[in-house]
Amino acid sequence: MARKCSVARALQVVGEQWALLVLREVFLGVHRFDAIQQATGAPRAVLVRRLRTLVEAGVLVRRDYRETGARTRQEYRLTEAGRELQPVLTALMQWGDKHLAGPDGPPLLVTHRGCGAPVRARLCCEQGHRLDDTGRDLTAAPTS
Amino acid sequence: MARKCSVARALQVVGEQWALLVLREVFLGVHRFDAIQQATGAPRAVLVRRLRTLVEAGVLVRRDYRETGARTRQEYRLTEAGRELQPVLTALMQWGDKHLAGPDGPPLLVTHRGCGAPVRARLCCEQGHRLDDTGRDLTAAPTS
Repeated sequence: MARKCSVARALQVVGEQWALLVLREVFLGVHRFDAIQQATGAPRAVLVRRLRTLVEAGVLVRRDYRETGARTRQEYRLTEAGRELQPVLTALMQWGDKHLAGPDGPPLLVTHRGCGAPVRARLCCEQGHRLDDTGRDLTAAPTS
Repeated sequence: MARKCSVARALQVVGEQWALLVLREVFLGVHRFDAIQQATGAPRAVLVRRLRTLVEAGVLVRRDYRETGARTRQEYRLTEAGRELQPVLTALMQWGDKHLAGPDGPPLLVTHRGCGAPVRARLCCEQGHRLDDTGRDLTAAPTS
């Protein structure tokens, strides 16, 4: 029997390349279907399905908007639950930056709005201790 | 044209449900093909392909091992680059724990070996400031 696990459950919502790339775009301020399609390169049919799954999972909401003189269109916005996926994207990005960036270096720089320093996803404990990113300082046990 | 991005590149290595579940198992100490297959529930043919991709990407290494009197078998171990995916898994797990755990609560408790406190993936900047997990305090810009 497969293990009972929140990683597996989370992956049922966002465990797929296009879903995470869609979320990246919405985080970056791209909200409209055509623009998301262009920025991700996802096939339109796949994108339709992904957006529907993300809306049903409560990660995105679809909203109507209308520019003066134009017809009503839909755009996608992050819910609070969706915003809380930022550490997942940041952790993926820093891993890609380190291991896959190549000679050009990281394509995107993410900085703290307050001080301008680069942002990282770090392992910490609730007592405030900083853990090694390789997970050597942590231990995992089933709760039941 | 699709955006140049380390999230997209990282997802080409681990952006797939089974790949991340395989890594979860290897982090939890499950190293042999049959045991990984049982714990993830991945179809065998899919698992063979995923393991090959993860080895080629330098995330896992395959090693021979042999128990007394038995034939040589292979097991899978994390490389240092593989270990550095721990923040991705921890961030996914904490999101699933919060949004998808249901009435039984989180199935797995991950704690700091040093002090026993629960472990989190947090957004911090290199100046040591703690950021909001929703990413409201960060800003992203292309490097070129």
